[in-house]
Amino acid sequence: MWDVAGCLFCSIVSGEVPSFTVASTDECVAFLDIRPVFKGHVLVVPREHVVTLADVPAGLISPLFGFARRLSVAAEKGLGAGGSFVAINNKVSQSVAHLHVHVVPRTKGDGLRGFFWPRTRYESDEEAKSYASRLADAFPGHG
Amino acid sequence: MWDVAGCLFCSIVSGEVPSFTVASTDECVAFLDIRPVFKGHVLVVPREHVVTLADVPAGLISPLFGFARRLSVAAEKGLGAGGSFVAINNKVSQSVAHLHVHVVPRTKGDGLRGFFWPRTRYESDEEAKSYASRLADAFPGHG
Repeated sequence: MWDVAGCLFCSIVSGEVPSFTVASTDECVAFLDIRPVFKGHVLVVPREHVVTLADVPAGLISPLFGFARRLSVAAEKGLGAGGSFVAINNKVSQSVAHLHVHVVPRTKGDGLRGFFWPRTRYESDEEAKSYASRLADAFPGHG
Repeated sequence: MWDVAGCLFCSIVSGEVPSFTVASTDECVAFLDIRPVFKGHVLVVPREHVVTLADVPAGLISPLFGFARRLSVAAEKGLGAGGSFVAINNKVSQSVAHLHVHVVPRTKGDGLRGFFWPRTRYESDEEAKSYASRLADAFPGHG
Protein backbone atom coordinates (compact mmCIF):
# COMPACT_ATOMS: atom_id res chain seq x y z
CA MET A 1 0.00 0.00 0.00
CA TRP A 2 3.00 2.29 0.45
CA ASP A 3 4.51 1.61 -2.94
CA VAL A 4 5.12 4.61 -5.09
CA ALA A 5 5.22 3.81 -8.79
CA GLY A 6 8.70 4.01 -10.20
CA CYS A 7 10.42 4.20 -6.81
CA LEU A 8 13.44 1.91 -6.82
CA PHE A 9 13.47 1.44 -3.07
CA CYS A 10 9.73 0.72 -2.89
CA SER A 11 10.42 -1.98 -5.49
CA ILE A 12 13.24 -3.38 -3.38
CA VAL A 13 11.02 -3.34 -0.29
CA SER A 14 8.27 -5.20 -2.13
CA GLY A 15 10.78 -7.72 -3.51
CA GLU A 16 10.00 -6.81 -7.10
CA VAL A 17 13.60 -5.69 -7.55
CA PRO A 18 16.15 -8.08 -6.01
CA SER A 19 18.66 -6.91 -3.44
CA PHE A 20 21.14 -8.36 -1.02
CA THR A 21 19.00 -8.13 2.07
CA VAL A 22 20.75 -7.91 5.43
CA ALA A 23 17.87 -7.64 7.88
CA SER A 24 14.30 -6.44 8.08
CA THR A 25 11.65 -5.46 10.59
CA ASP A 26 7.95 -4.68 10.29
CA GLU A 27 8.86 -1.07 9.49
CA CYS A 28 12.23 -1.21 7.70
CA VAL A 29 14.49 -3.14 5.35
CA ALA A 30 18.30 -3.08 5.20
CA PHE A 31 20.16 -4.15 2.07
CA LEU A 32 23.58 -3.71 0.53
CA ASP A 33 24.40 -0.57 -1.44
CA ILE A 34 25.63 -2.07 -4.72
CA ARG A 35 28.19 0.74 -5.11
CA PRO A 36 29.56 0.68 -1.57
CA VAL A 37 31.92 3.25 -0.12
CA PHE A 38 33.32 0.20 1.66
CA LYS A 39 32.10 -3.35 1.29
CA GLY A 40 29.32 -4.02 3.75
CA HIS A 41 27.84 -0.52 3.20
CA VAL A 42 24.14 -0.90 4.00
CA LEU A 43 21.12 1.20 3.15
CA VAL A 44 18.34 1.25 5.73
CA VAL A 45 14.96 2.26 4.30
CA PRO A 46 11.51 2.48 5.81
CA ARG A 47 8.95 0.28 4.05
CA GLU A 48 6.69 3.30 3.90
CA HIS A 49 7.57 5.70 1.11
CA VAL A 50 8.89 8.83 2.77
CA VAL A 51 11.27 11.13 0.94
CA THR A 52 13.36 12.93 3.55
CA LEU A 53 14.00 12.90 7.27
CA ALA A 54 11.55 15.79 7.62
CA ASP A 55 8.83 13.51 6.24
CA VAL A 56 9.31 10.68 8.73
CA PRO A 57 6.24 10.32 10.95
CA ALA A 58 6.97 10.64 14.67
CA GLY A 59 6.09 7.01 15.28
CA LEU A 60 8.63 5.81 12.75
CA ILE A 61 11.65 7.63 14.22
CA SER A 62 12.43 5.04 16.87
CA PRO A 63 11.89 1.93 14.66
CA LEU A 64 14.02 3.47 11.91
CA PHE A 65 16.95 4.70 13.96
CA GLY A 66 16.81 1.84 16.43
CA PHE A 67 17.20 -0.42 13.40
CA ALA A 68 20.06 1.68 12.00
CA ARG A 69 21.75 1.48 15.39
CA ARG A 70 21.59 -2.30 15.31
CA LEU A 71 23.10 -2.26 11.83
CA SER A 72 26.00 -0.14 13.08
CA VAL A 73 26.61 -2.77 15.76
CA ALA A 74 26.45 -5.51 13.12
CA ALA A 75 29.06 -3.69 11.00
CA GLU A 76 31.51 -3.89 13.85
CA LYS A 77 30.67 -7.39 15.02
CA GLY A 78 30.09 -8.98 11.63
CA LEU A 79 32.76 -7.27 9.57
CA GLY A 80 35.31 -6.44 12.22
CA ALA A 81 34.95 -2.74 11.46
CA GLY A 82 36.49 -0.28 13.87
CA GLY A 83 33.45 1.95 13.70
CA SER A 84 30.77 3.19 11.37
CA PHE A 85 29.50 6.19 9.51
CA VAL A 86 25.74 6.74 9.57
CA ALA A 87 24.40 9.37 7.20
CA ILE A 88 21.38 10.74 5.38
CA ASN A 89 21.31 13.08 2.39
CA ASN A 90 18.07 15.05 2.34
CA LYS A 91 17.17 16.42 -1.11
CA VAL A 92 20.63 17.66 -2.07
CA SER A 93 22.86 14.76 -3.17
CA GLN A 94 19.96 12.40 -2.52
CA SER A 95 20.12 9.88 -5.36
CA VAL A 96 16.82 8.07 -4.71
CA ALA A 97 13.77 10.01 -3.47
CA HIS A 98 13.00 7.45 -0.75
CA LEU A 99 14.70 8.09 2.57
CA HIS A 100 17.75 5.90 3.08
CA VAL A 101 20.15 5.83 5.99
CA HIS A 102 23.66 4.86 4.97
CA VAL A 103 25.50 2.65 7.45
CA VAL A 104 29.10 2.39 6.29
CA PRO A 105 31.71 0.24 8.06
CA ARG A 106 34.82 2.26 8.89
CA THR A 107 38.31 1.23 9.83
CA LYS A 108 41.05 3.43 11.15
CA GLY A 109 43.41 4.23 8.32
CA ASP A 110 40.83 3.29 5.68
CA GLY A 111 41.77 6.40 3.76
CA LEU A 112 38.61 8.33 4.45
CA ARG A 113 38.17 11.08 6.90
CA GLY A 114 34.58 11.22 8.06
CA PHE A 115 34.50 14.83 7.17
CA PHE A 116 37.36 15.62 4.89
CA TRP A 117 35.32 18.36 3.34
CA PRO A 118 36.92 21.72 3.62
CA ARG A 119 35.81 23.47 6.77
CA THR A 120 35.12 27.15 7.00
CA ARG A 121 34.96 29.65 9.85
CA TYR A 122 32.55 32.28 11.07
CA GLU A 123 33.93 35.76 10.46
CA SER A 124 32.92 36.88 13.93
CA ASP A 125 30.87 35.90 16.96
CA GLU A 126 28.14 38.14 15.61
CA GLU A 127 27.94 36.18 12.41
CA ALA A 128 27.76 32.91 14.35
CA LYS A 129 25.04 34.35 16.58
CA SER A 130 23.02 35.40 13.56
CA TYR A 131 23.12 31.86 12.18
CA ALA A 132 22.15 30.40 15.54
CA SER A 133 19.24 32.86 15.74
CA ARG A 134 17.95 32.13 12.27
CA LEU A 135 17.97 28.43 13.04
CA ALA A 136 16.40 28.91 16.45
CA ASP A 137 13.65 31.09 15.02
CA ALA A 138 12.87 28.50 12.36
CA PHE A 139 12.96 25.59 14.81
CA PRO A 140 9.61 23.78 14.60
CA GLY A 141 7.61 24.47 17.72
CA HIS A 142 9.54 27.65 18.44
CA GLY A 143 7.64 30.50 20.02
CA MET B 1 24.83 13.90 36.86
CA TRP B 2 25.75 12.79 33.36
CA ASP B 3 28.87 14.89 33.07
CA VAL B 4 32.02 13.05 32.26
CA ALA B 5 35.15 14.84 33.39
CA GLY B 6 37.08 16.32 30.54
CA CYS B 7 34.32 15.79 27.98
CA LEU B 8 33.99 18.94 25.87
CA PHE B 9 30.38 18.29 24.94
CA CYS B 10 29.35 17.53 28.52
CA SER B 11 30.88 20.91 29.37
CA ILE B 12 28.88 22.58 26.61
CA VAL B 13 25.69 20.86 27.79
CA SER B 14 26.28 22.04 31.36
CA GLY B 15 27.05 25.56 30.16
CA GLU B 16 30.55 25.49 31.58
CA VAL B 17 31.93 25.95 28.08
CA PRO B 18 30.08 28.55 26.01
CA SER B 19 28.53 27.68 22.67
CA PHE B 20 26.18 29.18 20.14
CA THR B 21 23.07 27.30 21.19
CA VAL B 22 20.35 26.79 18.62
CA ALA B 23 17.75 24.80 20.50
CA SER B 24 17.42 22.38 23.38
CA THR B 25 15.05 19.85 24.85
CA ASP B 26 15.00 17.90 28.09
CA GLU B 27 17.18 15.28 26.44
CA CYS B 28 19.31 17.11 23.89
CA VAL B 29 21.14 20.31 23.01
CA ALA B 30 21.92 21.69 19.54
CA PHE B 31 24.72 24.20 19.00
CA LEU B 32 26.84 25.49 16.14
CA ASP B 33 29.91 23.57 15.04
CA ILE B 34 32.58 26.26 15.23
CA ARG B 35 34.36 24.81 12.20
CA PRO B 36 31.32 24.35 9.98
CA VAL B 37 31.30 22.53 6.67
CA PHE B 38 28.79 25.23 5.78
CA LYS B 39 27.64 28.04 8.02
CA GLY B 40 24.70 26.92 10.08
CA HIS B 41 26.24 23.45 10.59
CA VAL B 42 24.77 22.20 13.87
CA LEU B 43 25.81 19.48 16.29
CA VAL B 44 23.01 17.70 18.12
CA VAL B 45 24.13 16.00 21.32
CA PRO B 46 22.27 14.11 24.00
CA ARG B 47 22.67 15.65 27.46
CA GLU B 48 23.54 12.20 28.72
CA HIS B 49 27.11 11.20 27.99
CA VAL B 50 26.93 8.42 25.43
CA VAL B 51 29.82 7.75 23.10
CA THR B 52 28.43 6.16 19.94
CA LEU B 53 25.09 5.37 18.34
CA ALA B 54 25.42 1.81 19.67
CA ASP B 55 25.43 3.24 23.20
CA VAL B 56 22.20 5.22 22.89
CA PRO B 57 19.53 3.79 25.22
CA ALA B 58 16.36 2.69 23.41
CA GLY B 59 14.35 5.42 25.10
CA LEU B 60 16.64 8.14 23.81
CA ILE B 61 16.45 7.20 20.12
CA SER B 62 13.20 9.01 19.41
CA PRO B 63 14.00 12.21 21.39
CA LEU B 64 17.43 12.41 19.75
CA PHE B 65 16.48 11.79 16.14
CA GLY B 66 13.15 13.57 16.41
CA PHE B 67 15.17 16.59 17.53
CA ALA B 68 17.68 16.15 14.69
CA ARG B 69 14.77 15.96 12.27
CA ARG B 70 13.45 19.29 13.50
CA LEU B 71 16.91 20.82 13.08
CA SER B 72 16.99 19.61 9.47
CA VAL B 73 13.68 21.40 8.92
CA ALA B 74 15.09 24.53 10.57
CA ALA B 75 18.11 24.45 8.24
CA GLU B 76 15.82 24.71 5.25
CA LYS B 77 13.35 27.18 6.71
CA GLY B 78 15.80 29.35 8.61
CA LEU B 79 18.73 29.40 6.25
CA GLY B 80 16.99 28.82 2.94
CA ALA B 81 18.98 25.63 2.43
CA GLY B 82 17.91 23.30 -0.36
CA GLY B 83 18.39 20.26 1.85
CA SER B 84 20.54 18.86 4.60
CA PHE B 85 23.11 16.28 5.42
CA VAL B 86 22.67 14.41 8.69
CA ALA B 87 25.57 12.27 9.83
CA ILE B 88 27.25 10.49 12.71
CA ASN B 89 30.83 9.25 12.94
CA ASN B 90 31.06 6.34 15.34
CA LYS B 91 34.56 5.79 16.73
CA VAL B 92 36.47 6.21 13.46
CA SER B 93 36.80 9.91 12.54
CA GLN B 94 34.88 10.76 15.71
CA SER B 95 36.60 13.86 17.07
CA VAL B 96 34.81 14.08 20.43
CA ALA B 97 33.88 10.91 22.33
CA HIS B 98 30.34 12.12 23.03
CA LEU B 99 27.79 11.22 20.38
CA HIS B 100 27.03 14.12 18.05
CA VAL B 101 24.72 14.22 15.08
CA HIS B 102 25.89 16.66 12.40
CA VAL B 103 23.09 18.57 10.69
CA VAL B 104 24.64 20.43 7.74
CA PRO B 105 22.65 22.77 5.48
CA ARG B 106 23.13 21.87 1.83
CA THR B 107 22.45 23.77 -1.36
CA LYS B 108 22.47 22.42 -4.86
CA GLY B 109 25.75 23.39 -6.49
CA ASP B 110 27.42 24.05 -3.12
CA GLY B 111 30.45 22.18 -4.35
CA LEU B 112 30.00 19.13 -2.17
CA ARG B 113 28.66 15.83 -3.22
CA GLY B 114 27.09 14.06 -0.27
CA PHE B 115 29.25 11.11 -0.95
CA PHE B 116 32.06 12.09 -3.21
CA TRP B 117 34.16 9.34 -1.71
CA PRO B 118 35.37 6.85 -4.20
CA ARG B 119 32.92 4.02 -4.54
CA THR B 120 33.93 0.43 -5.02
CA ARG B 121 32.17 -2.67 -6.37
CA TYR B 122 31.63 -6.22 -5.25
CA GLU B 123 33.67 -8.65 -7.34
CA SER B 124 30.72 -10.99 -7.68
CA ASP B 125 27.25 -11.74 -6.37
CA GLU B 126 28.87 -14.34 -4.13
CA GLU B 127 31.05 -11.73 -2.52
CA ALA B 128 28.05 -9.47 -1.94
CA LYS B 129 26.10 -12.36 -0.45
CA SER B 130 28.93 -13.15 1.92
CA TYR B 131 28.92 -9.57 3.22
CA ALA B 132 25.15 -9.60 3.61
CA SER B 133 25.38 -12.89 5.53
CA ARG B 134 28.11 -11.70 7.87
CA LEU B 135 26.05 -8.63 8.69
CA ALA B 136 22.84 -10.62 9.07
CA ASP B 137 24.50 -13.13 11.38
CA ALA B 138 25.88 -10.34 13.54
CA PHE B 139 22.61 -8.43 13.63
CA PRO B 140 21.59 -8.00 17.29
CA GLY B 141 18.65 -10.23 18.05
CA HIS B 142 19.46 -12.53 15.17
CA GLY B 143 18.71 -16.19 15.50
